[in-house]
Amino acid sequence: MPLVCEIVSVGTELLLGSIANTDARDISQGLAEAGIHCYYHTTVGDNPGRLREALRIARERADIIITTGGLGPTCDDLTKQTVCEAFGVPLELHAGTWERILGYFERIGRPVTENNRRQAMLPAGCAVLENDWGTAPGCGFHAGDTWVFMLPGPPKECRPMFQKCLMPLLKSLSGTTIVSRSVRVFGMGESAVEDRLRPLMERSLNPTLAPYAKEGEGMLRVTASARTAEEARRMTEPVVAEVLELLGDVVYGVDVDSLEGVVLELLEREGAGLAAAESCTGGMVAARLTGVPGASKRFAGGVVAYARAVKVNVLGVPDTLIDRHGMVSEEVALGMARGCCRVTGAELGLGLTGLAGPGGDGSGVPVGTVCIALFDARDGSQRTLRRSFGDERDRVRTMASLTALDMVRRKLTRGEGRISV
Amino acid sequence: MPLVCEIVSVGTELLLGSIANTDARDISQGLAEAGIHCYYHTTVGDNPGRLREALRIARERADIIITTGGLGPTCDDLTKQTVCEAFGVPLELHAGTWERILGYFERIGRPVTENNRRQAMLPAGCAVLENDWGTAPGCGFHAGDTWVFMLPGPPKECRPMFQKCLMPLLKSLSGTTIVSRSVRVFGMGESAVEDRLRPLMERSLNPTLAPYAKEGEGMLRVTASARTAEEARRMTEPVVAEVLELLGDVVYGVDVDSLEGVVLELLEREGAGLAAAESCTGGMVAARLTGVPGASKRFAGGVVAYARAVKVNVLGVPDTLIDRHGMVSEEVALGMARGCCRVTGAELGLGLTGLAGPGGDGSGVPVGTVCIALFDARDGSQRTLRRSFGDERDRVRTMASLTALDMVRRKLTRGEGRISV
Repeated sequence: MPLVCEIVSVGTELLLGSIANTDARDISQGLAEAGIHCYYHTTVGDNPGRLREALRIARERADIIITTGGLGPTCDDLTKQTVCEAFGVPLELHAGTWERILGYFERIGRPVTENNRRQAMLPAGCAVLENDWGTAPGCGFHAGDTWVFMLPGPPKECRPMFQKCLMPLLKSLSGTTIVSRSVRVFGMGESAVEDRLRPLMERSLNPTLAPYAKEGEGMLRVTASARTAEEARRMTEPVVAEVLELLGDVVYGVDVDSLEGVVLELLEREGAGLAAAESCTGGMVAARLTGVPGASKRFAGGVVAYARAVKVNVLGVPDTLIDRHGMVSEEVALGMARGCCRVTGAELGLGLTGLAGPGGDGSGVPVGTVCIALFDARDGSQRTLRRSFGDERDRVRTMASLTALDMVRRKLTRGEGRISV
Repeated sequence: MPLVCEIVSVGTELLLGSIANTDARDISQGLAEAGIHCYYHTTVGDNPGRLREALRIARERADIIITTGGLGPTCDDLTKQTVCEAFGVPLELHAGTWERILGYFERIGRPVTENNRRQAMLPAGCAVLENDWGTAPGCGFHAGDTWVFMLPGPPKECRPMFQKCLMPLLKSLSGTTIVSRSVRVFGMGESAVEDRLRPLMERSLNPTLAPYAKEGEGMLRVTASARTAEEARRMTEPVVAEVLELLGDVVYGVDVDSLEGVVLELLEREGAGLAAAESCTGGMVAARLTGVPGASKRFAGGVVAYARAVKVNVLGVPDTLIDRHGMVSEEVALGMARGCCRVTGAELGLGLTGLAGPGGDGSGVPVGTVCIALFDARDGSQRTLRRSFGDERDRVRTMASLTALDMVRRKLTRGEGRISV
């Protein structure tokens, strides 16, 4: 019987919609990996009565309860007191934790305030989950049939504490291991992907195959459950191979972090550098690439040519070319791509020009139109395309960035595109 | 008695942690605005039995249930059937919806698949919430004492449908209106802000005053409830004014979208243009600024000078200057800022150079060190600073971007910084 866990998130800011519950997402990923089932997430505000009610319900249907939030020093943090009351465990000052908090404040040079002391009050006999990422420690105890763990709410504290302190424990509590593989897709709509994979999805039980929509792209998850990670991984392999066969070159990677990560690896393999000249995307292509550690080896940099003067003066796109073809044209995109190769010395150059909206620019070009060019300074080869990405500014910018990166991927895989695993 | 709503989110992808529940966040924001209380969010997987259980519990404690997810065409979408069974309402083919779906597929030039027809099956006698953003319509009905609304899961469909179709209805169901104001802070830690505001927070009941942590910055929310929006807004004013008095120039705006939006407005007022030369932030400053519609009026563009060659050849930073002071130095940042003014013709130029990590660069500069310069080409004035932002790559990049934008804000407010409302 697999263990069942329920995540109880505490925080009025969640119920007011000030933030999305990324803690529940991060913890759920870990639970899946540890082979622990999660059937419910419950979110309650900073209200002892309603938290008590949520704990009562969770206790009936789960072996493990993980709470997030309400361990900080602010005046409305009530989780520890309420959980301890609900499970009949007293709170007491934990000397080691109090010393650690004092040390933390000394290190960052801020004064300790009275309410920081409350963070050192912990359930009697609990296991303390040290917080190297903030002041509030987490903790865990076993009461009756239930394991209870309390984690801090801020994602920058919750995520590493869960990963480093709780995951090893959860894996040892659970007998099974789940291995989940992700197949990443760009350039085919969600429905089309699903239509093509439906027969395979329907006959896949272990591993399962399920589609997920991501911002501007697609993802398929293949999840197998077995006694060991090796066995589970081996079970995923034929299904992953069949997905690759069915989808072909729209798959840009398996178990990869991002399209930009794949592009940087391909550049590394080829020994080539990339630069980008961006207008409508305004630095998003560069920001994506430089978000990958070590990007500097293969991404030289770029020019955010938002103003016409920058296109002309920095990138050397001729004024006459812009006048003849218009700012949003494949010709100008190509001029930008050539220009950024020239100024950065990179072998490959991307040029993006488009109209992200919401308003038009008076030229008659429809909002959402984007032209992208990829220039190879080594042999002078070039490709350009013109696309329309609808009328939503964020989506236009995201799709333009991804499409540009995918052009580089397709070029570097020699048009074959298809990967094998 | 204010109405109480519970959000029931359906989707195994939420329980597996594949995505965060942004729908619950977006709907919660709207409920708060409509003066409807939300005490619980519940998330369940694509499992009829557990969804039935969640609906049973929600029905006991809420007047309104809003479900998200499970209306799409995929084989594991079971929300409509389960909700209808739970509330004893039959499903029937809705002719208008079926025609609309056929039209949608004709427009986008994709074939209709058999399971798209299931999307046209709706609860008998329901109100249909048209979906202009996808294929799955939403719907709503009243059963016993409970209002039930079902919205699609993909955020790009859920958010606009909720805003355009459901919000007007919810506002009319609710008698009260809530007005929420946000005070945005950069440059003071969360604990320090709270210490300074604690007495005010503790005596504020209506309006309430509550702190929220955002990525790299701070936010305070002042929320008042009254019969009319005008009255609620008037009630927030003295509290907002007191917060501004207590926090001074770390407040960069009230009810503003972002720091970059404030910077662009100040540039507009001043009639000046900005450019950015970025190394460690790799285009993030540019991407933030160009995320604001209309940014092109005041943001000329920039250079992502990731490689040394780009700093030297494009921005004209002398090789000798880099050798003498090191790549991460206030001198090089200033050279970059000057260079990007020169090449773009902008009045103001930002230069950022730093070490985002995770690894060092062998120069002995600690990971997390960032130097930022702001150059004013009109009078040759300049400011530079050197900061340390810890050892986490994403945080270093975010904090560097925000700090640079805040430098521009402080310059354009003539060092006064303090705003009044």
